Amino acid sequence: MARLIEELRKLPGVGAKSAQRLAFHILRSSAEDADALALAVREVKARLRLCSICYNITDVDPCLYCASPTRNQRVVCVIEEPTSISAIEKTRSYTGVYHVLHGTLSPLHGVGPEHLKTASLQARVEHGEIDEVILATSPTVEGEATAHYLAQLLRHADTRISRIATGVPAGSDIEYADEVTMTRAMEGRREV
Amino acid sequence: MARLIEELRKLPGVGAKSAQRLAFHILRSSAEDADALALAVREVKARLRLCSICYNITDVDPCLYCASPTRNQRVVCVIEEPTSISAIEKTRSYTGVYHVLHGTLSPLHGVGPEHLKTASLQARVEHGEIDEVILATSPTVEGEATAHYLAQLLRHADTRISRIATGVPAGSDIEYADEVTMTRAMEGRREV
Repeated sequence: MARLIEELRKLPGVGAKSAQRLAFHILRSSAEDADALALAVREVKARLRLCSICYNITDVDPCLYCASPTRNQRVVCVIEEPTSISAIEKTRSYTGVYHVLHGTLSPLHGVGPEHLKTASLQARVEHGEIDEVILATSPTVEGEATAHYLAQLLRHADTRISRIATGVPAGSDIEYADEVTMTRAMEGRREV
Repeated sequence: MARLIEELRKLPGVGAKSAQRLAFHILRSSAEDADALALAVREVKARLRLCSICYNITDVDPCLYCASPTRNQRVVCVIEEPTSISAIEKTRSYTGVYHVLHGTLSPLHGVGPEHLKTASLQARVEHGEIDEVILATSPTVEGEATAHYLAQLLRHADTRISRIATGVPAGSDIEYADEVTMTRAMEGRREV
């Protein structure tokens, strides 16, 4: 029991009290449920890996996006985490592929380019036949710094480099936009 | 007292209970305070009017933006309400002037172009020497429809027409962007 509590405490957001509560829940649950949980935990590590092309989490390599014949393999959307894919997929308008950085540059936390999948992105752009790289890191300080670094890194390649738009979110009133967003919305205005 | 309550109830967001509470507060306040309030209410109507050029609320005509020698009178930012000006002024980067529509197109509520200051905008663009019209209505359904209508209305004029950017707000994570915003952020991407 103490060992289970110790292991559960390693999970993010789980403190001593929560770990104890979870452990007691598992103790009281049926043997099948406990087995199913144990199996799922083991299998996630055994079966899931990173795609060798885009570093998305996948159970087949290459992942379903990189292997898809219907997706445009010449357009690469660069994202921070695998979870960003769902944010872009739900637009139902993006048909290219991805490249997952697994983080953002953060000198304060000791995260440099060598900790991210940047070299492999550079290799993909230089060796592969890629028409456009869309930098879709978040418009946060770290995300912008990462996008800026990548734009510099890839500037010699014969590839279009673009950055997603920062602006007033759809459906919201410009009165509620903060200064930085409003400034970017004005700067990023487009001719109609 | 009943008459005061009746008048206060006409204010937006003030119901019967609130009107009563406000009336009793005025009753209990000093004669000076009550006079100051009455004077302020009367003066706001007597002194403030709409600028004859941009329809901003002002106490001098033309308003301080239209009369300013340091502002670029050749760039006009079209906004829904006078309150939008503060949203754009706080960016501290816009140096042009404004044109206040006083609403948005809303066929469901019977608001057509004739209820907005659109004809005067058209006249300003056609007669004045204007280089750019920035459509800064909100990216809501009505705001977009209004921007689209104005773009059509002004398309024959020899003036650049632009629309503020819709996208992921600065400082936020793309995972929290809704589908429409994310779609617009991808569509509105710019080369870097």
